[in-house]
Amino acid sequence: MPTGHVMMAMTLDGFVARKDHTIDWLMKQETQGEDYGFEEFMSGIDVIVMGSGSFRTVLGFNEWAYNKPVIVLSRSLNDSDVPEHLKDKVKLSRLDPDTLMSELSRQGINRVYVDGAAVVQTFLRAGYIEDMKVTLIPILIGSGIRLFGDLDKDMDLRLDGVREFKSGLVDLRYRVI
Amino acid sequence: MPTGHVMMAMTLDGFVARKDHTIDWLMKQETQGEDYGFEEFMSGIDVIVMGSGSFRTVLGFNEWAYNKPVIVLSRSLNDSDVPEHLKDKVKLSRLDPDTLMSELSRQGINRVYVDGAAVVQTFLRAGYIEDMKVTLIPILIGSGIRLFGDLDKDMDLRLDGVREFKSGLVDLRYRVI
Repeated sequence: MPTGHVMMAMTLDGFVARKDHTIDWLMKQETQGEDYGFEEFMSGIDVIVMGSGSFRTVLGFNEWAYNKPVIVLSRSLNDSDVPEHLKDKVKLSRLDPDTLMSELSRQGINRVYVDGAAVVQTFLRAGYIEDMKVTLIPILIGSGIRLFGDLDKDMDLRLDGVREFKSGLVDLRYRVI
Repeated sequence: MPTGHVMMAMTLDGFVARKDHTIDWLMKQETQGEDYGFEEFMSGIDVIVMGSGSFRTVLGFNEWAYNKPVIVLSRSLNDSDVPEHLKDKVKLSRLDPDTLMSELSRQGINRVYVDGAAVVQTFLRAGYIEDMKVTLIPILIGSGIRLFGDLDKDMDLRLDGVREFKSGLVDLRYRVI
């Protein structure tokens, strides 16, 4: 089976976005010149799986951020929601995690970037996440969309590394054990 | 006015205890021989302020952990809830943060250890927390009592330092700015 890998930014109080999906609190961080290893992370990835919320967010960016195929898990979106210039880069899917991972396995996919809180939570619960890179942002926003959600049982993690940036951001790398 | 200081352990998903206040997930961490600086932190503290939930938890420990006066903020507890051997160490109070801090100021108190999620949240919102030492535990427990709560507005933090332990725990020190 392919393995799932997470790279997300989270406020100290656990949020990846405000309730309205905005990330102004992230954009205002003074991270100029700091390398969070996104390129390196992406180089080891075969395909990106995200939810419709993340898809709408990245659609709002000036540039398409991904040089790997993107699968958007959504029951509500249909092909007309994918802009013409992204039709060869983005595929919609309604598969559940098990069926999707089996299908990706058949396609020879090894490493999946699992993006967006809802999808991360689903894949964590299904046991498909191997490691997570959580970048902790030095701010409390009080409410919003939480990165982590309910679990059937505790999930122990092994710390693989910590990196502190001048901006005050902290990169935490964990392996799910 | 005195300043408030926080030292708490939190799961990566933001909890300080399960819903039933248990911290078995914390106790099972293999932290033997690791110094989290509790003694050093306490040496700079004049008084500890905690809520009734934290008070009940520390009452359950074998030994009384504090060598400084403790004020328990509670509207429900009364003097008979304080064990005889702690009557000279623990004082109950029903004061709100503003009145309590003014009162402590009159007593010449400079530094207050603010303990317990509910009290930390109240004192954060009231603007009395100067810095926080959050020890991040490498586990997801899915639900429980969150360290941080709703805020009227964002609260920017400055990272003062990070320390990684062999056990996988990570000490994060932030200043409220």
